[in-house]
Amino acid sequence: MAKLSAEDVLVQKILRGFPAFGQGGIHLGVGDDAAVWHPRKGQETILTSDWFLEGTHFLREKHPPDAVGWKCLARTASDIAAMGGTPRCFLLNLAIPSSCTGVWLAGFLGGLRRATKKIGCALAGGDTTRQERVLINVAVIGEVAAGRAVLRAGARPGDLVFVSGRLGEAELGLRQLRKGRVKFRSTDAVLRKHLYPEPRIALGNWLARNRLVSAMMDLSDGLSTDLARLCEASHVGAVVAEGALPGPEGLAQAEAARLALHGGDDYELLFTIRPHEIPRFRRLWKGDLKLPISCVGTIMKKRKVLLVKDAGGAEELLPGGWDPFGK
Amino acid sequence: MAKLSAEDVLVQKILRGFPAFGQGGIHLGVGDDAAVWHPRKGQETILTSDWFLEGTHFLREKHPPDAVGWKCLARTASDIAAMGGTPRCFLLNLAIPSSCTGVWLAGFLGGLRRATKKIGCALAGGDTTRQERVLINVAVIGEVAAGRAVLRAGARPGDLVFVSGRLGEAELGLRQLRKGRVKFRSTDAVLRKHLYPEPRIALGNWLARNRLVSAMMDLSDGLSTDLARLCEASHVGAVVAEGALPGPEGLAQAEAARLALHGGDDYELLFTIRPHEIPRFRRLWKGDLKLPISCVGTIMKKRKVLLVKDAGGAEELLPGGWDPFGK
Repeated sequence: MAKLSAEDVLVQKILRGFPAFGQGGIHLGVGDDAAVWHPRKGQETILTSDWFLEGTHFLREKHPPDAVGWKCLARTASDIAAMGGTPRCFLLNLAIPSSCTGVWLAGFLGGLRRATKKIGCALAGGDTTRQERVLINVAVIGEVAAGRAVLRAGARPGDLVFVSGRLGEAELGLRQLRKGRVKFRSTDAVLRKHLYPEPRIALGNWLARNRLVSAMMDLSDGLSTDLARLCEASHVGAVVAEGALPGPEGLAQAEAARLALHGGDDYELLFTIRPHEIPRFRRLWKGDLKLPISCVGTIMKKRKVLLVKDAGGAEELLPGGWDPFGK
Repeated sequence: MAKLSAEDVLVQKILRGFPAFGQGGIHLGVGDDAAVWHPRKGQETILTSDWFLEGTHFLREKHPPDAVGWKCLARTASDIAAMGGTPRCFLLNLAIPSSCTGVWLAGFLGGLRRATKKIGCALAGGDTTRQERVLINVAVIGEVAAGRAVLRAGARPGDLVFVSGRLGEAELGLRQLRKGRVKFRSTDAVLRKHLYPEPRIALGNWLARNRLVSAMMDLSDGLSTDLARLCEASHVGAVVAEGALPGPEGLAQAEAARLALHGGDDYELLFTIRPHEIPRFRRLWKGDLKLPISCVGTIMKKRKVLLVKDAGGAEELLPGGWDPFGK
């Protein structure tokens, strides 16, 4: 057998344990220069990619490698859910120190494998190299029924604004982790939300299939930052009611609202529904996805985002979520 | 207008100057959670991604930002050429220090824009964040006529081994750059080859369209490393003739051969042709792509790669090209 480079040996190690191609719409997968893919009949291809960097998005000494593997795929797949689509395969770009090619890599691949099964997304290819820090970039390829992708740009004045799940839990989980709670207990919902987020694929699919939403995106950087993005894309503004925010349970009201507004990493869905579609939404929504859905505000014409405080007054809501280039 | 985060302001800066979506098969491009794409009729989608990292793949103080922008797209598009495909759009994942968001970014985007035009590949999306070093990952999405993608795995004993262009020039260009020759003169072919490689898209297309090749890949890490990969994928070995190697001009024979065997970053094509197809290849090949094509060896059954030296003897050729995890 021809001698392999050390990089090729590492790539073979990574590939072991991932299902062979043929899954996820991949005709030709890892090991060649590129993967060949096509969606099922009547579907279009969706493409998205995300950074997941040591020191910026996770801490190697705090985050279990298993959670890093899970989350790098889950958070990128969330962008596909936000379009109403279904993730199908992904490219894994992994740069790691030589010291991470043993135990750390095994843990990482274990978490990643579990995520590929849960999300139904097959490894199609990628690139591997060495760096002092762990750098990850994941590109997810998904599909959506032709013409049915849900954009950020469709919100109109009068539409109601909804979010799935509880906002701010992931941020609270990160705080616990920072305090040294590194042992993961499955009963700890907020820690699990931070370490093992579950992209809202079923909900996104359901909303798109039923043509219920006028605009949709996922909440990755915090409601205050992401709602401003949806408004900007739709050329509208919004009013959010502080009292309607589904923050983490068991906290003082002000703190729960602050986390719900500015906490990042929730990977819940933010979407808008036209007022006349609300009855149909209420009729169709059986809650069978076991996920709370909350109406948190209204879209308005004036291009600002306002927060109506519980005390009564309103103030401008400025982006206060995650911003890598912020001060 | 709703307030934007600093990241969003940077993203808008990046988008200026790139053609609007609607090009490159993109139905919906940057600015939403994901891009929606589909290939032209009768074509399949090809997916590939590559790292391009400061300190590993380029040096910020040596490589002009314009060349970094050009090369990050060109080298990834080369993987599409190696499948016989055509690059169509790409996801740009860019992590940069705050100090690089001005002059450096403008230079980078200038080079990238020129590459998108030359290669015919439109910006579809990606992700931007901050890091101390410049980290780039580019995913290129291309298309190939259904069933026509050329794999690494098709080489059989007796096939002839070909390469395009001159090998080792990019490595020689890197040496010049390291010696301090930072001023780029367009007359300097080897420096240009290192800084502004041109993916062999027309040649790859031509070879695939005419069904001339049994296996193909691009030369990114050096012939000794990449030929071993092609052989491994095809379960074969190969014999390479030292005297047939098209090394850089104007060097001593041994040095030219060493560069041709182990120099990385050439982005030329390595391909195999069945013996009975050689007359058809010779008849069809008019040289109109203005690129030298050299036969450098033969595929054999024994799974080793041998180098026949000019002096007469043969030795095993071990992977000696670029290997991030090598010693």
